[in-house]
Amino acid sequence: MIYDSIIIGAGPAGLSAAINLNGRGKEVLVLNGGDNLLTKAGEVTNYLGFPHISGSEMMSTFKSHVTERNIAIDNKKSANIMPSGNSFYVNVEGDILESKSIILATGVFKAQPVENEDKLLGRGVSYCATCDGMLFRNKNVIVWGLADNAPEEAAFLKSIGVNVTFVGAKENDVITQNEIPFIKGSLKAVNGENKVSGATLSNGDVLPCDGIFILRNSIAPDKLIPSLALENGYITVDRKMQTNIKGVFACGDCTGLPLQVSKAVGEGLISALACSEYLDIQ
Amino acid sequence: MIYDSIIIGAGPAGLSAAINLNGRGKEVLVLNGGDNLLTKAGEVTNYLGFPHISGSEMMSTFKSHVTERNIAIDNKKSANIMPSGNSFYVNVEGDILESKSIILATGVFKAQPVENEDKLLGRGVSYCATCDGMLFRNKNVIVWGLADNAPEEAAFLKSIGVNVTFVGAKENDVITQNEIPFIKGSLKAVNGENKVSGATLSNGDVLPCDGIFILRNSIAPDKLIPSLALENGYITVDRKMQTNIKGVFACGDCTGLPLQVSKAVGEGLISALACSEYLDIQ
Repeated sequence: MIYDSIIIGAGPAGLSAAINLNGRGKEVLVLNGGDNLLTKAGEVTNYLGFPHISGSEMMSTFKSHVTERNIAIDNKKSANIMPSGNSFYVNVEGDILESKSIILATGVFKAQPVENEDKLLGRGVSYCATCDGMLFRNKNVIVWGLADNAPEEAAFLKSIGVNVTFVGAKENDVITQNEIPFIKGSLKAVNGENKVSGATLSNGDVLPCDGIFILRNSIAPDKLIPSLALENGYITVDRKMQTNIKGVFACGDCTGLPLQVSKAVGEGLISALACSEYLDIQ
Repeated sequence: MIYDSIIIGAGPAGLSAAINLNGRGKEVLVLNGGDNLLTKAGEVTNYLGFPHISGSEMMSTFKSHVTERNIAIDNKKSANIMPSGNSFYVNVEGDILESKSIILATGVFKAQPVENEDKLLGRGVSYCATCDGMLFRNKNVIVWGLADNAPEEAAFLKSIGVNVTFVGAKENDVITQNEIPFIKGSLKAVNGENKVSGATLSNGDVLPCDGIFILRNSIAPDKLIPSLALENGYITVDRKMQTNIKGVFACGDCTGLPLQVSKAVGEGLISALACSEYLDIQ
């Protein structure tokens, strides 16, 4: 099947886009890559209609609005999106899905890239174990595990014959049970000229390796879709929430300040209407 | 007293602006000129968080959010706004209020001006009985009563000694009790070269007169504030909802499509934050 739209992100913007595309009869899939920032907010008082509500109550109210429409929300991350003619191929933890359009509602991307990460991306640096794991069979890789599901991804790598070392804040059961070597710490730099030759950790240790999987909870939008235009780290959009790539729309925190629920919900609506129009003339 | 902001319009956009300015400690007044379009909507299903709600229930939910913050909502219309240095004078049914900033949330303005209305505005054509009534004492005026409170305005004109004839869709008690001559019909054209000389009605009748009060429920935004920039009838705004006039912001349906609650609420927030920033550096 080909989706009308795959929405990357299940915060207020993504969910608002989802109900509005659904309301126009479009087949959508929402990808929920991880906890939304809003769930961590205390009381939210400035979204009109809810004078007293906590961030997590608000998120569950929003989610039930979407689920009662039978809109699919998949708790998976997208690692990259490839435009191809009039559609897009979306890599969702190893499965390749096809969609006629994309709505980016990825929230704020906070991480700074480490030294050489950008330079060696695709040359030994990867964001997706299920996508690129096979390239590293019988080779030595470092997994820098920042995402919640990073231990599972490391275990997957080990299961297909990759020699994995896990670098992260704390060891957990998945790491222990799979007998994956664990180093407490974080990645400071990727080493190598044309391809990865090793990893430098924050404590100064250098570990030689063939590949480095940097597994964050989110991926910078321009890493998700190559050649996406950004401005000060935010996705460039016009008044209809169109990005510089035809068929790709963006809404919510990823398009810039203010980082607020009302703005995200409003932009979700606008992107859905513009996307729906786009789909209707394809 | 000088208000920090006067918000013209009490629909979703104006109310969202109000709670967000209030949240930043600003003194605001909301002017509610008449029924909001939303109150006439049936079920609204695409404002995230309210899967099933009627337009009128939604409006009352929104209003209680505002009133529980003790934000003043005044059921009055503004007839015109005059910039003066760093503040604005707002004519509210004859009272002159001062404000450091203005947020226009006037909704959609649907009326087409009648022939010569624009040309003779201020030369016998007026939108405001309490503002201009005294100029027409002992003179003959036509009141074209489209607004809900037009009969009261006509009665006011009569009480100060203006010779009033009321043109409208139907006679009501206020008109009868004040013995105001009533003509069932509507205005087709304003007659006169440099000043008003008469009115042509839709049935072709011509009534000589000195003034014509055109009392609609809403006033076109560029009539409300002279030299406000419009585009296709909508107020021109940038991404921060600033208009071409410093200190004047706009949000909601009056800034253009899509005419939807989520967009209005989001823009209300954005205009409030931009307005708040503006106030802080004054």
